Amino acid sequence: MKNDNHNNEKTNTKNIHEEENCIFCKIIKKEISAEIVYEDDYTISFMDIYPNTRGHLLVIPKIHIENIYGLDHETAARLMISIQKISVATKNALDADGINILMNNEEAAGQIIWHAHIHIIPRYKDDEGYYHKKHIYHDNDEIKNIAKDIQKEI
Amino acid sequence: MKNDNHNNEKTNTKNIHEEENCIFCKIIKKEISAEIVYEDDYTISFMDIYPNTRGHLLVIPKIHIENIYGLDHETAARLMISIQKISVATKNALDADGINILMNNEEAAGQIIWHAHIHIIPRYKDDEGYYHKKHIYHDNDEIKNIAKDIQKEI
Repeated sequence: MKNDNHNNEKTNTKNIHEEENCIFCKIIKKEISAEIVYEDDYTISFMDIYPNTRGHLLVIPKIHIENIYGLDHETAARLMISIQKISVATKNALDADGINILMNNEEAAGQIIWHAHIHIIPRYKDDEGYYHKKHIYHDNDEIKNIAKDIQKEI
Repeated sequence: MKNDNHNNEKTNTKNIHEEENCIFCKIIKKEISAEIVYEDDYTISFMDIYPNTRGHLLVIPKIHIENIYGLDHETAARLMISIQKISVATKNALDADGINILMNNEEAAGQIIWHAHIHIIPRYKDDEGYYHKKHIYHDNDEIKNIAKDIQKEI
């Protein structure tokens, strides 16, 4: 018998967002490949496969947390330290003119994958606003080379 | 006599960005008023006076650092812990449907004030994309009340 009480909605939400189906958890476990540029005990960073600009990457916690609300303070702290290191490396490796750091939490804010993640989006003087250029750049070999260049700087 | 050597450009840049002229340093020192919602030894958070949405606020380090590149790890860690706490409080206080967390580093990424700052931008199902609605909302009394509501939840 299905449980028809008031907890139903909450239970369903949990199922949709569960760890077993999480693409980022699969990247962490190396079950799905990704261009990883950095990894430590708490965080991992890899290239976004739909980059908004050259060098767009993600930083995520290794534990499955949906978004900012559930982040414990130790993991939050480690994330920002990784973001800082990777931002410097990315700027130096790619000679970027700036960097946007962005975290979308919940659907109304544009979150699509339900594992907390922070975008590091390098900006260039001539990029005319990255948000107008979604999915402009998707060349696996070039992404691999960019990942290597960033890795060298970390 | 003016110094006309190659360091001129660097020197000028430093002057433009110096601590004495920094509006955020003046807020930290309470020389300029702001609707402060949270403060600890490392960070301070206050309402953005040009909010993109209802409840838009900023979190900044108390030391004068221009952007992500110069952040020491202790300050970086404390910033993310504050961001996490304030995000939860903001969501609960304003019944927000989501939150964007955004940090712009350097002019090419939209940075205007040269003291590192992170935007916490609550999102609502009907807000139709906050970036199209800059400066839509600027009512001091309402900002004061929102600040109080967020403060109560921290």
